[in-house]
Amino acid sequence: MAITYPFLLLKKEKCLENIKKMVSKAEKNNLMFRPHFKTHQSIEIGSWFKEFGINACTVSSFPMAKYFASAGWKDITVAFPVSPFDLEVINTLGQTIHLNIVFSSFNNLNTILNDNIQCKVGVYIELNCGHNRSGISTDNNREIALMINCIEQNDFLQFKGFIAHSGHTYNSKTIEEVKAIHHQSLKLLTQIKLFWKESYPEIIISYGDTPSSSISDNFWGVDEIRPGNFVFYDLTQATIGACTTDDIAVALICPIVDVYLERGEAIIRGGAVHLSKDFILLPDGSKSYGLICPFNGKSWEKPYNGLWMKSISQEHGVIASNDIEQLNALKPGQLVAILPIHSCLTADTMGEFYLSDGTCITTMRKR
Amino acid sequence: MAITYPFLLLKKEKCLENIKKMVSKAEKNNLMFRPHFKTHQSIEIGSWFKEFGINACTVSSFPMAKYFASAGWKDITVAFPVSPFDLEVINTLGQTIHLNIVFSSFNNLNTILNDNIQCKVGVYIELNCGHNRSGISTDNNREIALMINCIEQNDFLQFKGFIAHSGHTYNSKTIEEVKAIHHQSLKLLTQIKLFWKESYPEIIISYGDTPSSSISDNFWGVDEIRPGNFVFYDLTQATIGACTTDDIAVALICPIVDVYLERGEAIIRGGAVHLSKDFILLPDGSKSYGLICPFNGKSWEKPYNGLWMKSISQEHGVIASNDIEQLNALKPGQLVAILPIHSCLTADTMGEFYLSDGTCITTMRKR
Repeated sequence: MAITYPFLLLKKEKCLENIKKMVSKAEKNNLMFRPHFKTHQSIEIGSWFKEFGINACTVSSFPMAKYFASAGWKDITVAFPVSPFDLEVINTLGQTIHLNIVFSSFNNLNTILNDNIQCKVGVYIELNCGHNRSGISTDNNREIALMINCIEQNDFLQFKGFIAHSGHTYNSKTIEEVKAIHHQSLKLLTQIKLFWKESYPEIIISYGDTPSSSISDNFWGVDEIRPGNFVFYDLTQATIGACTTDDIAVALICPIVDVYLERGEAIIRGGAVHLSKDFILLPDGSKSYGLICPFNGKSWEKPYNGLWMKSISQEHGVIASNDIEQLNALKPGQLVAILPIHSCLTADTMGEFYLSDGTCITTMRKR
Repeated sequence: MAITYPFLLLKKEKCLENIKKMVSKAEKNNLMFRPHFKTHQSIEIGSWFKEFGINACTVSSFPMAKYFASAGWKDITVAFPVSPFDLEVINTLGQTIHLNIVFSSFNNLNTILNDNIQCKVGVYIELNCGHNRSGISTDNNREIALMINCIEQNDFLQFKGFIAHSGHTYNSKTIEEVKAIHHQSLKLLTQIKLFWKESYPEIIISYGDTPSSSISDNFWGVDEIRPGNFVFYDLTQATIGACTTDDIAVALICPIVDVYLERGEAIIRGGAVHLSKDFILLPDGSKSYGLICPFNGKSWEKPYNGLWMKSISQEHGVIASNDIEQLNALKPGQLVAILPIHSCLTADTMGEFYLSDGTCITTMRKR
């Protein structure tokens, strides 16, 4: 099969290093490790985790749970609040694997009437530690009690504990900000766990986004972590301080189509349909949609100084420069590697990865 | 096949109306109409244009040209600067259809060595009228002359004229701004055409983005228009004034998963992997990722007042409200329709459309 451009190149060794580091961190802190597979969405990459002894995973949808179950994953948490449209999959998948589901409020729980779930499933209550997406406010003890009561009354639902995602760490600009959010979350979660542990001694706290899990060495009160993005990392994580640009394991290989020295810009084939459209803000308030690296035909090297993607449209990317010599080194027809801002979305839009030996790794989103 | 949520619903009647209006506008202004198919990327939707007598189209990549050629399209312009990686497709496709290619500078032209193209193709020179993406500056007569000279010396290349895309109309906030950009572009393009028409009387100007083509009634000097987005429109176009929200032909059907009245917010399953991540800025400077409409099981109605998508992550959308009664009407488990900010990217990430009768329309990006 001929490669068409752009394509997404994956450094397998880098990816394995990222996995190994997170496995070690979990072990060192005595944490269960249930990596989130929404970042790669790939059975093949999932199998790399198995080599490190990982047998449980997290996913963001029931179709994704089915996909990984088909590859032998027997212990899966769907870390997205259930909706009635998920019932059919819950009742089939729940018969063959250990499936954990999430309720994000009493109202959300109530949409799944008690007698609709017909097989044993583990249940987590989702807590909101300040991210303000889904989850009950940690101070809403009355509603939490109501939910636990409902769960306990249903023979099919097994109360497993509390789950939380402090995704507001993604907006942090420094390691200190991440640590502050992380410590605040631990405080809130531990209070709730201590309160309910008397009645339910087996419950756990499942927690841990990529910034917190990468940066922190303190997980007091947490039993399980679920980071996902760390498998590839990206420029968002590098900007936060959760990784270096050298830890990034995926890059989009794009042709330079033109160079306009008079404007200090170059154009690549590579846009929103390849990278998706997340950006980071540079110190001067302008946007960056990616960094540009030399590509040697097999792999990429450190980013060019003074070059960045200033804008993207559907299939064009515009490279800006503040170093005319670096720009002048780019030639139409040359291939470059773009480090993505948000690797989860880039992997999702591309739907497949290539290794440096030409092997193609598909995902559940393979087009 | 069971529908999974979210899915992209297409109002076929609305889409046909949008096509019909643009066909009429082209006829009225004596313009050739070569619609851009990157928005829908669908053979089925392409066939709707044939019913209006349209036999030529525009695409944004050579794989897309191959896809539409496979469905009988015999006259295709690839409105993206050529790179050497496209040569193989050019030399096969160019033998069976009337293929037009684009060069965006002398350097870009130079990457395709003269003897590499082995079949007759039409050639456009891309001009930059101020969008500052690809294309030569309209005042660079020396380079334009150099390119025309090169093209004329090659037996396989037929010089067809000049192509331009004033995509900076997308950043307009008013109809007047669009008109000003449009008139400035017409002025620049017409000067160049008049200059070169003496030597090449057959050359044409191919021009026309969706905002300009929708809003303007003056195309003096232009021979062909190539809008694409108008087939669906979206909230970006409605904000500019190129359409009304009632003209929008696609919406993402999503389940409400939770409602948090105390925060004035609701959560849907529907995020960046479904809508992509374009946003518009509201008058107060905050972001909107979409508007929310009631969904009656078959179609959607006018947007709710006082509700909008304030943020999206990979698979979650957060609905904000300034009308607690409208918010209170949303219930977990209910389906709503989201009008997209940028329908081209939403269609690309979703890869398929459903009609109200349940028919599924695939695209070349079908996953």
